[in-house]
Amino acid sequence: MLTSSQFELAEVVAILTRTPASLDALLRGLPDTWVHGSEGRSKDGEDTWSAFAIVGHLIHGERTDWMPRARMILENGEARSFDPFDRLAQFKESQGKSLDQLLDEFARLRGESLAALRALNLQPEDFARRGKHPALGVVTLSELLATWAVHDLTHLHQLSRVMAHQYRDAVGPWSAYLGVLKCTGHSS
Amino acid sequence: MLTSSQFELAEVVAILTRTPASLDALLRGLPDTWVHGSEGRSKDGEDTWSAFAIVGHLIHGERTDWMPRARMILENGEARSFDPFDRLAQFKESQGKSLDQLLDEFARLRGESLAALRALNLQPEDFARRGKHPALGVVTLSELLATWAVHDLTHLHQLSRVMAHQYRDAVGPWSAYLGVLKCTGHSS
Repeated sequence: MLTSSQFELAEVVAILTRTPASLDALLRGLPDTWVHGSEGRSKDGEDTWSAFAIVGHLIHGERTDWMPRARMILENGEARSFDPFDRLAQFKESQGKSLDQLLDEFARLRGESLAALRALNLQPEDFARRGKHPALGVVTLSELLATWAVHDLTHLHQLSRVMAHQYRDAVGPWSAYLGVLKCTGHSS
Repeated sequence: MLTSSQFELAEVVAILTRTPASLDALLRGLPDTWVHGSEGRSKDGEDTWSAFAIVGHLIHGERTDWMPRARMILENGEARSFDPFDRLAQFKESQGKSLDQLLDEFARLRGESLAALRALNLQPEDFARRGKHPALGVVTLSELLATWAVHDLTHLHQLSRVMAHQYRDAVGPWSAYLGVLKCTGHSS
């Protein structure tokens, strides 16, 4: 397992580079059951997440979270807190768009983010530079970059869950063997 | 949500068709941290699952589980139980192979499975045909086919988890927000 002192930017970039194409291969052209089937309202009246919402959320992260925060660490250090990230922005921003449009937009924005990251020409000593998260307190640049990659994976995790649950009755008794159907999510 | 009486083969095929390319886009060429980093032994002395093991497991399913069981339902009904599925076969069968070889093999076998499925020319009335699972008892063809798709998704779920956990220290305090890092798996 990696600790922040052994941080390897190439490993993070390897994930970030692959996520758009992997989501594209999985989602483009899928029937609505899989893309929108989980949409609705939770008991608490919140919009529930679908494949469509997840891609929209990843887009919002590219626009407002990852590279803007990396730049803020390099420019302001701990002097200024990051802007809070709106986890629900996609429910407005994706309205009227198609999944294909969102997939295209995510791939384009991720490409731009990675080009901007390369242009920073980060050196090993940069990864320990510190910034300030509005809720978590002091964080390092390496933690931010590692989180960017794991954030892709956490939404792949969520995506497989919300899709699989569309078929929780259709699989009959096999539900006992399908771990993803036992997952109720891990977010607050 | 789908019930078995509304079973749509096209929805299942839509997932099954896309999984190999999605895994290929995510995994091919990734650094070893992500592909093999989770390999080892559990407390119980069992091999732990990695991205590499998961692709091997999907290959074994194509060879021995899905289409063989579909054929057994059509040919034998409940008269003969399915052969048990070896969930751990990949730890032997994948030895000496590269991830790229496994990805190629999975894509080829899945393509063959889907061609064989099409050749069966299944009609709506076929989906209620029954077979016998060695542990679960009576199951239907629609349940088997739905399970095939959800099995892809359950291993995408597992894949994102075992990969993300390689970075559970690297993300620092963000681990509190990353749902996938709270997942300890759902299989026995």
